[in-house]
Amino acid sequence: MRFNDLIAKKRAGEELTEDEIEFFIDGYVRGEIPDYQVSAFLMAVIFKGMTKNETFWLTDKMLHSGETIDLSSIEGKKVDKHSTGGVGDKTSLVLGPLVASCGAKFAKMSGRGLGHTGGTLDKLESIPGFNISLGREEFIEQVRRIGISIIGQTGELVPADKKLYALRDVTNTVDSIPLIASSIMSKKLAAGTDTILLDVKFGDGAFMKTMEDARKLAKLMVEIGKHFGKDTRAEITAMDEPLGYAVGNNLEVKEVVNTLLNKGPKDLTEICLHSGSTMLLQAKLVSTFEEGMEMLRKNLENGAAYKVFLDFIKAQEGDVSYIENLDKFPVALYREKVNAPRSGYIARCKALTIGLAAMKLGGGREKKEDTIDMSAGIVLKHKIGDRVEKGEELATLYTERPNFEAVAKEVLGAFEIVDDPVEKSPLILETIE
Amino acid sequence: MRFNDLIAKKRAGEELTEDEIEFFIDGYVRGEIPDYQVSAFLMAVIFKGMTKNETFWLTDKMLHSGETIDLSSIEGKKVDKHSTGGVGDKTSLVLGPLVASCGAKFAKMSGRGLGHTGGTLDKLESIPGFNISLGREEFIEQVRRIGISIIGQTGELVPADKKLYALRDVTNTVDSIPLIASSIMSKKLAAGTDTILLDVKFGDGAFMKTMEDARKLAKLMVEIGKHFGKDTRAEITAMDEPLGYAVGNNLEVKEVVNTLLNKGPKDLTEICLHSGSTMLLQAKLVSTFEEGMEMLRKNLENGAAYKVFLDFIKAQEGDVSYIENLDKFPVALYREKVNAPRSGYIARCKALTIGLAAMKLGGGREKKEDTIDMSAGIVLKHKIGDRVEKGEELATLYTERPNFEAVAKEVLGAFEIVDDPVEKSPLILETIE
Repeated sequence: MRFNDLIAKKRAGEELTEDEIEFFIDGYVRGEIPDYQVSAFLMAVIFKGMTKNETFWLTDKMLHSGETIDLSSIEGKKVDKHSTGGVGDKTSLVLGPLVASCGAKFAKMSGRGLGHTGGTLDKLESIPGFNISLGREEFIEQVRRIGISIIGQTGELVPADKKLYALRDVTNTVDSIPLIASSIMSKKLAAGTDTILLDVKFGDGAFMKTMEDARKLAKLMVEIGKHFGKDTRAEITAMDEPLGYAVGNNLEVKEVVNTLLNKGPKDLTEICLHSGSTMLLQAKLVSTFEEGMEMLRKNLENGAAYKVFLDFIKAQEGDVSYIENLDKFPVALYREKVNAPRSGYIARCKALTIGLAAMKLGGGREKKEDTIDMSAGIVLKHKIGDRVEKGEELATLYTERPNFEAVAKEVLGAFEIVDDPVEKSPLILETIE
Repeated sequence: MRFNDLIAKKRAGEELTEDEIEFFIDGYVRGEIPDYQVSAFLMAVIFKGMTKNETFWLTDKMLHSGETIDLSSIEGKKVDKHSTGGVGDKTSLVLGPLVASCGAKFAKMSGRGLGHTGGTLDKLESIPGFNISLGREEFIEQVRRIGISIIGQTGELVPADKKLYALRDVTNTVDSIPLIASSIMSKKLAAGTDTILLDVKFGDGAFMKTMEDARKLAKLMVEIGKHFGKDTRAEITAMDEPLGYAVGNNLEVKEVVNTLLNKGPKDLTEICLHSGSTMLLQAKLVSTFEEGMEMLRKNLENGAAYKVFLDFIKAQEGDVSYIENLDKFPVALYREKVNAPRSGYIARCKALTIGLAAMKLGGGREKKEDTIDMSAGIVLKHKIGDRVEKGEELATLYTERPNFEAVAKEVLGAFEIVDDPVEKSPLILETIE
């Protein structure tokens, strides 16, 4: 077999066989197929797509390109959740303790933020002392003991995806639905949980710009999960404005704590209850969606979810005194208010603009090597649908960098204020199972 | 500027600027842009094409990526001719001496054969002693003195094309009309002649499979040539059956000599007179096409063209005793006749099949590193339109390799014999200027 012939086949829009996909992934991981052939192949995939079978095979070969994790020694249903990434998306940090407090085992390997989207690991590391690098056995032991652990991906998981993703990133071949689906699902399947819930976001601040693309990606990932025998479901959610009010690492952790104390933003609470209820159904801990909602609401109100969060932070060496007294978190040197230029109703608050602005303030990474200011970011005061008066505060910027004027202008530009009342569009649009 | 952004631009079908194309070629030649990004870009070009401006700029930047040749010290019009490659295409070897005998200065840098197509340099090297590696000054001096020289490309000409072509070859990104056009034309323009004649072949044995594609390529190359101020014309010619009867290096040289002695195959003679006349027009040595035809016919008949050929071979250290006595050329060990399985008229004699068969007999290269048996190849006895009787010879295979049975079958399969007389389709379809 010659890889050049497989490039020709894909370029012509033909379906590769399982053996051919295996030859591709094996050869690439072993370094026998060079990057320059793989990138040409990937660009052909951008234009010609992949069939369902090709996508299953690709996921399978990537999944088995390295180690997989065996969680069978943990009693109960091991659940996992993945978001395709958004602005202000701190869902996992609320959802994990919440479903763990109901008996699910939340065993999650997470990633770092890049570009306009934040990463769960970065947020956790804004809590002084927090350790994201547990060994395999410690991770399993912690999930067994307190029902939750979130760590960074360990080295030998899905090396094929790691290598392929790095190449896609520098060759403009990231945004292909079958490539995204197989990349996400190979990692989720390798992580070894019983169930997978996918939060597929669409809109201005998401990788999928349209509801249609988000649905395609969600359906494909659910099909892949089922093909591999896992209970996999997906929710299609809107990402036109940031989720909650806070964007930036320790700013978001504070919002997480407030949400777990049942005084969080409406949209964040709503999405956590909805996703949580689906996860409880997947874990067979409840038999109806409503039963799940009720159980979760109770555990928010009675402090059970918050208690699991404290145990979780403590178990991974985080300093809980910060959680118990949020004022301990460092506050950025510069705080700049952005005020409404006119009175009216907020019609738009563009997530992408806010996400990029938070990055420029020091709260995110432009390149993988960049470091993050944990206290940098943006806290919104108002969101879509709100009535504001001229001169009223729309948001506050937090940064250690003195040249924030241009960013302040960008944040102002993210808002659109109109005369007539605005109806908020729904946050959760569909559940695919 | 980041090359990844240029990949995105091309992928979206947008036109790159001149600066961007310069950034691409400069960066690639200097090794600052890696192969894996360029191959993704090239695959995007396969799907999205290039505009005329992009193609002009690409040609320009490639052309200036290395040395260019200055032929201005040679008096008279320096003419060049390029064929896109076919089976049995020995035109340059007849055409060069022919137009030189009429006063044109034929200064050609040529290439080697690969796959089913032969190369002019290989054919010349089948003449014992022939030297294709003249220095720049020797080359110019010889053209000045006897009106013709054909040599291999010297090192520093168009290094960008050399590097790009090698990458295209292993990433299935060869057959893009703008990439082919800029590759050919950058080399022809760097070679510094006053006029360029392009023989763009189409059909079974050519790179362009359809007349339509051949016309597109020809028009684009003529436009590029004119953009750079050169008299550039193109002929669209058919390559459904081999040109002439001989396919293979010394077999073709013998046919060339016979053609120069005015006893060559009708099709080869016809194409040489036609192309030659166009070249004389380009060189302003005649004022009508008919005048050119007449001058060329005369020089075939009176031996003037043959005399220039002898001078040319002698000047480049070839042993002319072989030319003067064609029986001196070594003959391959095995000669295998392929006979007509039935009586009738030859409707097809597939050039691609014959070309590949000649390669397998040792007359061509599958890979660049392969060596060639100069005496190997195929000599046809009949061509399309001929009447043959059952058992009559169709072709003879010449090879040093004992296992020629399978190849003999393939050669037989190249022929189609039918009951009714077959009308031959025209060889030269169009001249574009």
